[in-house]
Amino acid sequence: MTARGFSTAEFKSRVANAQTLMAQHGLAALLLTTEPEVRYFTGYLTRFWESPSRPWFLIVPAVGNPVAVIPSIGAALMARTWITDIRTWRSPNPVDEGIGLLTETLIEMAGKDGRIGVPDGPESHLRLPLSDWAKLTNAVPMLGGDHGVMEQLRIVKSSAEVAKIKQACSIADNAFARVPEIARAGAPLEKVFREFQSLCLSEGADWVPYLAGASNQGGYTDVISPATDAPLTKGDVLMLDTGLVWDGYFCDFDRNFSIGKPSQAVADAHKVLIDATRAAFDIAKPEMRACDLFHAMDRIVTGGQGGSDAGRLGHGLGMQLTEWPSLTAGDQTVLKPGMVLTLEPGIEMSPTQTMVHEENIVITGTGAEFLSTPASPEILVIEA
Amino acid sequence: MTARGFSTAEFKSRVANAQTLMAQHGLAALLLTTEPEVRYFTGYLTRFWESPSRPWFLIVPAVGNPVAVIPSIGAALMARTWITDIRTWRSPNPVDEGIGLLTETLIEMAGKDGRIGVPDGPESHLRLPLSDWAKLTNAVPMLGGDHGVMEQLRIVKSSAEVAKIKQACSIADNAFARVPEIARAGAPLEKVFREFQSLCLSEGADWVPYLAGASNQGGYTDVISPATDAPLTKGDVLMLDTGLVWDGYFCDFDRNFSIGKPSQAVADAHKVLIDATRAAFDIAKPEMRACDLFHAMDRIVTGGQGGSDAGRLGHGLGMQLTEWPSLTAGDQTVLKPGMVLTLEPGIEMSPTQTMVHEENIVITGTGAEFLSTPASPEILVIEA
Repeated sequence: MTARGFSTAEFKSRVANAQTLMAQHGLAALLLTTEPEVRYFTGYLTRFWESPSRPWFLIVPAVGNPVAVIPSIGAALMARTWITDIRTWRSPNPVDEGIGLLTETLIEMAGKDGRIGVPDGPESHLRLPLSDWAKLTNAVPMLGGDHGVMEQLRIVKSSAEVAKIKQACSIADNAFARVPEIARAGAPLEKVFREFQSLCLSEGADWVPYLAGASNQGGYTDVISPATDAPLTKGDVLMLDTGLVWDGYFCDFDRNFSIGKPSQAVADAHKVLIDATRAAFDIAKPEMRACDLFHAMDRIVTGGQGGSDAGRLGHGLGMQLTEWPSLTAGDQTVLKPGMVLTLEPGIEMSPTQTMVHEENIVITGTGAEFLSTPASPEILVIEA
Repeated sequence: MTARGFSTAEFKSRVANAQTLMAQHGLAALLLTTEPEVRYFTGYLTRFWESPSRPWFLIVPAVGNPVAVIPSIGAALMARTWITDIRTWRSPNPVDEGIGLLTETLIEMAGKDGRIGVPDGPESHLRLPLSDWAKLTNAVPMLGGDHGVMEQLRIVKSSAEVAKIKQACSIADNAFARVPEIARAGAPLEKVFREFQSLCLSEGADWVPYLAGASNQGGYTDVISPATDAPLTKGDVLMLDTGLVWDGYFCDFDRNFSIGKPSQAVADAHKVLIDATRAAFDIAKPEMRACDLFHAMDRIVTGGQGGSDAGRLGHGLGMQLTEWPSLTAGDQTVLKPGMVLTLEPGIEMSPTQTMVHEENIVITGTGAEFLSTPASPEILVIEA
């Protein structure tokens, strides 16, 4: 069984790595505001971020340990992490929603002239009302971008992080194996969705932040919809795509099921998707680039026409359902050991009949390993 | 059974109300970037927002229907809403992540000199990398705050919205009634958490975005932690607090359970919490203010000392787990029919033993109604 949490040594090593990169970019501090950013350095894990009412701040200084500037409701939980400098205000307080305390702390840690980096690139956002951001940038003019420091750190996972993702994948593997218990012709798709989430929980998921899918004759149109109450019907392809969480880390993969015997077109399309996945897996290793994996799959699913409306054929994952890089024609990210990726080729049999397959892999020193148990070329069949 | 979705008439009325407020503030358009903001005007409901990779934009013009500027992966689902003007780009594309298309569309809709409002107040954020926001504000200098327009609209729920929240509450009521099936002395808290989520799903939740709680001797320390593997023990107070979703709307309330016969202190504290909730409920009606409800509860739980580290004794809810207003001493929001609130008093028996109780209510024309089935003064007991 994989252990929960991380050692303090791991957090200290993350901070040290951050400080090395910060020094290269002349940053006196990082200011972080989102759940994964704060958790990356602290281990602070709570679903309370679901509430948008209160901002949370973590400052990583050029030297020394991070300082948390957070609402007092979070002090008890933060005190259970390795962070010792925890400064709080009673929130919500729209008159001063922590901006005064944050300003003081930033100036204390970075000085009046120290440049402070805030993540500003792809996949990032600022979890703070714009009016408070305006107050803050007035008080602390040295705020700017983080030069991709957080991306560079988080894109490569430690072995402890990979183990958590693998645990999440293994839970999803077990849940997918039990889909025949809940999916049969006549079952409404929304019931299948509810019961699949329960399967994930009963197999050990802490929670199930993401489930999408579809079930339509000979393929489906889009892959991001919630469920309708339409019953599964013989001839449908049912797809379930889950991002479940174990100890704060996601898996993200799907499985396709044929309700009754698949048509030749469906059977063939599924084989092509597995071929495409395998082609990317076979070349995945350090020094290859994200775009190389894209092309390996795109050659097989479109004949090299350059992708589809989905925009990419896979992506990173970890503390979030999707992370850097994107497997697109344009993404030049060089693969490194510890990068965790989805391979997610899609195929169009007709304008309204598409299929998507997805697996999770980790880049190793010499190649790649599957974290999900790879599907076989034959589509799974549910007796109708 | 409550119907899913909303009528097109309801969306049109929301747009008309927005346009009235926009005219008062001289806004030529609203630019929206977050899930609830986009869904409020469109009905676009998907869990795909869990992925931070792609921004999504909705523009509400001063006259006419909203325009969606979104990644092509979302076009099929958006086309099923009442929105007809859907402009897409293939995403992810870090070279131009929709900013070019958005700039053109904003200028087309608001003109070169029209002021464009972006939500910037409490509970809001911008779901967009800061570097893209910088590009956008360079290209479209007339971007500014929304003068609270989105808050003013969303803080009052329509009867169809209230029905969905009530449905979510009813599902949670049924799940709480079944807690004795899963919680007994010796059961690890994390197992109780997993099984409670399954109960919510089996009672009809679409998904369970939020579950927090605790179980400790005679009370608990904080109310936002995920579960540990510690077993429930005789003398514990178990608290489960869930925000489950039905058709895109949340409930948010908790229940306390005594594992075995409660101590007198626990039994008394629970009664005080119910008294406090009732005191706020009894005065809740149009023209009262959020702070009045705070004081009604605070008088009972602290003797009027002005609250605790939680920072408030309740809040709004709807498409999000927490929304405006906050039940604090400082929140002067005047209650109106259709506002949905939690009443959430907390009590401290000792520095490490607190209890929190929570119910959901809606303000009516003359008073208030419970949406959750209110708990009785006697704490629920689970035989140990």
